[in-house]
Amino acid sequence: MDLLSIESPAFLKGLTIDELNELSKDVRQFLIENLSRTGGHIGPNLGVVELTIALHRCFNSPQDKILWDVGHQSYVHKILTGRADQFETLRQYKGLCGFPKTAESEHDVWETGHSSTSLSAAMGMAIARDLKKEQSYIVPVIGDGALTGGMALEALNHIGHEKKNMIVILNDNEMSIAPNVGALHSILGRLRTAGKYNWVKDELEALLKKIPAVGGKMAQTAERLKDSLKYLLVSGMFFEELGFTYLGPIDGHSYEELLENLQYAKKTEGPVLLHVLTKKGKGFGPAELDKKGTWHGTGPYKMDTGDLIKPVGQPPAWSALVSETVRKIARTDDRVVAITPAMPVGSKLLGFAEEFPDRMFDVGIAEQHAATVAAGLATQGMKPFLAIYSTFLQRAYDQVVHDICRPNLNVFIGIDRAGLVGADGETHQGVFDIAFLRHIPNMVLMMPKDENEGQHMVNTAVQYDNGPIAMRFPRGNGLGVAMDEKLKEIPIGSWEVLREGTDVAILTFGTTIPMALKAAEVANKQGVSVKVINARFIKPLDEALLLDLLKDNMPILTIEEAVLQGGFGSAVLEFAHDQGFYGHAIDRMGIPDCFIEHGSVNALLEEIGLTEETAVRKLLAMTPKKQKRA
Amino acid sequence: MDLLSIESPAFLKGLTIDELNELSKDVRQFLIENLSRTGGHIGPNLGVVELTIALHRCFNSPQDKILWDVGHQSYVHKILTGRADQFETLRQYKGLCGFPKTAESEHDVWETGHSSTSLSAAMGMAIARDLKKEQSYIVPVIGDGALTGGMALEALNHIGHEKKNMIVILNDNEMSIAPNVGALHSILGRLRTAGKYNWVKDELEALLKKIPAVGGKMAQTAERLKDSLKYLLVSGMFFEELGFTYLGPIDGHSYEELLENLQYAKKTEGPVLLHVLTKKGKGFGPAELDKKGTWHGTGPYKMDTGDLIKPVGQPPAWSALVSETVRKIARTDDRVVAITPAMPVGSKLLGFAEEFPDRMFDVGIAEQHAATVAAGLATQGMKPFLAIYSTFLQRAYDQVVHDICRPNLNVFIGIDRAGLVGADGETHQGVFDIAFLRHIPNMVLMMPKDENEGQHMVNTAVQYDNGPIAMRFPRGNGLGVAMDEKLKEIPIGSWEVLREGTDVAILTFGTTIPMALKAAEVANKQGVSVKVINARFIKPLDEALLLDLLKDNMPILTIEEAVLQGGFGSAVLEFAHDQGFYGHAIDRMGIPDCFIEHGSVNALLEEIGLTEETAVRKLLAMTPKKQKRA
Repeated sequence: MDLLSIESPAFLKGLTIDELNELSKDVRQFLIENLSRTGGHIGPNLGVVELTIALHRCFNSPQDKILWDVGHQSYVHKILTGRADQFETLRQYKGLCGFPKTAESEHDVWETGHSSTSLSAAMGMAIARDLKKEQSYIVPVIGDGALTGGMALEALNHIGHEKKNMIVILNDNEMSIAPNVGALHSILGRLRTAGKYNWVKDELEALLKKIPAVGGKMAQTAERLKDSLKYLLVSGMFFEELGFTYLGPIDGHSYEELLENLQYAKKTEGPVLLHVLTKKGKGFGPAELDKKGTWHGTGPYKMDTGDLIKPVGQPPAWSALVSETVRKIARTDDRVVAITPAMPVGSKLLGFAEEFPDRMFDVGIAEQHAATVAAGLATQGMKPFLAIYSTFLQRAYDQVVHDICRPNLNVFIGIDRAGLVGADGETHQGVFDIAFLRHIPNMVLMMPKDENEGQHMVNTAVQYDNGPIAMRFPRGNGLGVAMDEKLKEIPIGSWEVLREGTDVAILTFGTTIPMALKAAEVANKQGVSVKVINARFIKPLDEALLLDLLKDNMPILTIEEAVLQGGFGSAVLEFAHDQGFYGHAIDRMGIPDCFIEHGSVNALLEEIGLTEETAVRKLLAMTPKKQKRA
Repeated sequence: MDLLSIESPAFLKGLTIDELNELSKDVRQFLIENLSRTGGHIGPNLGVVELTIALHRCFNSPQDKILWDVGHQSYVHKILTGRADQFETLRQYKGLCGFPKTAESEHDVWETGHSSTSLSAAMGMAIARDLKKEQSYIVPVIGDGALTGGMALEALNHIGHEKKNMIVILNDNEMSIAPNVGALHSILGRLRTAGKYNWVKDELEALLKKIPAVGGKMAQTAERLKDSLKYLLVSGMFFEELGFTYLGPIDGHSYEELLENLQYAKKTEGPVLLHVLTKKGKGFGPAELDKKGTWHGTGPYKMDTGDLIKPVGQPPAWSALVSETVRKIARTDDRVVAITPAMPVGSKLLGFAEEFPDRMFDVGIAEQHAATVAAGLATQGMKPFLAIYSTFLQRAYDQVVHDICRPNLNVFIGIDRAGLVGADGETHQGVFDIAFLRHIPNMVLMMPKDENEGQHMVNTAVQYDNGPIAMRFPRGNGLGVAMDEKLKEIPIGSWEVLREGTDVAILTFGTTIPMALKAAEVANKQGVSVKVINARFIKPLDEALLLDLLKDNMPILTIEEAVLQGGFGSAVLEFAHDQGFYGHAIDRMGIPDCFIEHGSVNALLEEIGLTEETAVRKLLAMTPKKQKRA
């Protein structure tokens, strides 16, 4: 059918199973074609085609509330709710968001991006529904990976206790982004291989009642008991213990099974967990065969061959640079241990894992646990490297404060995807880390200007023996600079003058350095001599260098790809005023006080004015007497 | 025995059971006597007397590592490790810490204060032990309440998966601080009433093997099967499913049971969970009978009657003021729902719960879930009040960013125990909240000057319809001011001039206002006219008022009981510079960049110089030309 003509999911009610299967094919074809041009989360969405269609057929969205955990698997939902025509703009500036957005559709009842939030949100909605005495189904869809996140487990515990009506769909694809880990994974594994054993509990209870009446059919009863025991050992006891009615596992690509079980779930009182087995990438060969998570989310690709269209000859990716440098150091320092919360692929730790299988721990989606495991390792003299994305480190803020910084433990936090990340948008921008880390006592925070400085900083972090140290680095690739063979240590708190100048100074670090250098050139042509400093240590500041600037009465412009409130620029302001330098022009550039949507990083920088033009304007404004007259 | 003479726990190895029981009595007497004078966590510690002694008898600390989750139950451990003589200084300035501190003793291998961290830390230690090929037992002791914290569940999942040797002691006292909630609680409840069914799994497996050989003894086999089924239904399947060997439940006040099971656990491969039942307050009548958590932690009390020694005629506690005002509003606004993560007593929500049992949710120790439940409620037009301590809100930082502020939902966060909290020390000081909330877009953050303004602010927060709003308030009691009968709304972002002045302005809020007013008086006597402003909105600032000050060229002193980095003072600096007011003396007072230990709030303020004297000195330094000559 013509997917572009869909206005609402209501049309699904009238379709036969055959027609639904036809629709699945059309949706898959649409996704494969469109995403080959735009890129996106192809694997997860191909896996939930039948599940999404079945949900919209069984429930009445938006009265019934379907919540997509993490949200990157909501493309089919977007197609069914009238947004097929926007897919050519997917994840682009001002285009269709890659995650649910309430501003896009009334059917997007819960916004996400980070994992494991859907059950808690669903609980809030269920409480509201019951207080308002409304009737509706609340249906969070959560993956097996997201289920191990602490807040999802907290939610299971609470939901099972309160016995609210709710239908939790466990979308089990045996692989979240990386192959899944954890005891829960084993539990699901046993359930998967056990086949269908629905409604075991009722059956067992009936059975138990019968036992006292032993009689001629004893042997038969014993056989059935034996089976029941087997059911018990392998069925959804874990979830039943938590207070859920467990249904499944069922084939998530069979409309018959999906519709039958969803109908049963609708009639069941209290919380239900429906265990649905799906295959990531279903219907697209390269994605189906993917074992490494490559097809979780991709850029554009060739539809026929499944080859990813990648720019060739790129400098090394930052994640690879960092993880490979840690690996190199680990060869001679057996204190080094790597920890990742479910991101071994994204953090490029597969090489480390291969070389040091005993020293690499993927703890699953469990950022809090990851941080405190690192702390525990550090208490024993180890040198843990916690590889984590900036936006996900937000989940471990308390652990960084309470378990790492307070006892001043030697943990090296590699903060990946710091700054704007682009297409993933609001929920993934790594723009808060400076503001939420800088105020924590004992923390050292740094960012390199290029991959060569990056490798030395990694070494500096591993060698540092005086407490926690974090290095932030951006998404994407390095600059292609020459790499030193021998690793060095960079003195803690030392900045570097990149360009001499006498009228005004720019303090900046990381990704904004090239822009700052260009702005300095432009200002220079207008007669203003601009000093540019690589302020690679965000904390501690290079106080000696900064004090010299202040004493020289140099106006200062700070530039950072991070929120302005409480950021690096504020640290400079604080220092200047603490030192009594009041009469001083200090201007700041950075991310303003709002959430930054999706789009290319350049488009976003342009929108918020974090550009060379702004820098030049500010440099000139601070040095009115120095400029050449036109 | 003379507890003061204990130097190390080694002496325990030679004691008989009778002697151990004698020792228990002495320890209890010591605790009851000492804490009657100093106050402290009496209930939890009386509950773990035998458990702690048994652990130190079975294991060799510090080679073997005993980790106390939360840590407030470590007093007996402190006595056994040579610190009995310091108990008269417990929780006092420069005295014995109420939580484990590595600086105090090599036996304190893990520092805590916040709950649910011990399993993750133990996992880090277990990994380190195995990599270093050392032999040692790692024994985290975690309460039933702390077990529901997300990070503890994340850790269970990971430990069960990795199969590391570790002996987890589940100290189950049926009551964490408040009566426990959640499905896990029900599971533990079933285990408790089931009696001892250790090693059920082995037994069952043997049984299953026998079944094919049906014969004359069929009836007997069926009976045993029936029993086994019962075991299965009631035993530690939950933990077994997670990969642990479950032992218990055992009587935590019986040395026979404790020693036998600990020895068995030591011989068991892989992770063990030993379920120990203890009674909070054991051996002290008033604490044993406590159902409300009053005896969890107390001030001084009378040993004979168990009466708490409380100052009489105090103004209302802040927690009560806030929760009771919410309750009052809830009578006419049925959108109001209260949520607490396991702190209904501390947050004084029992009255609300009694009046609105359907609108009050204690979600257990689960700060992340609590925050996102509130967000889910807000999506449905409800007005959730999230009652949470400042230090515990750290656990929900990501949820505040991602689930509350990003979608701009109407959640009212009541931030209790903001500022210095005193005796609980480093892990509990509520000094980071401004720095970790101020930079989040859409957040409104405020603090009242007294309980009358406080009640109006609570009303303002509930009425506010434009996104998240948080009110911080201190530990302890109000000022005793007169209370208005009718609730008002305070304009968002409006400050209030408390004292007129022309030479210099103080901007401050909350607890530091009285000190600021006194400092203003003193400076006034020296000829400096000080304006004092109640900067009750930390975000947004009262930009009009601030701009007037800047235009008037008034030097400004900001005072806050919170960290200086990225705090309120920084917000003022940022605004001034953004507005181009460079030539301006702005000085800041607040908490310096270090963790603040335990002690009375006044002693701590004195230590960090957050005092009237400092304020006067700074006021005079900023106004050299205004002062009267001596």
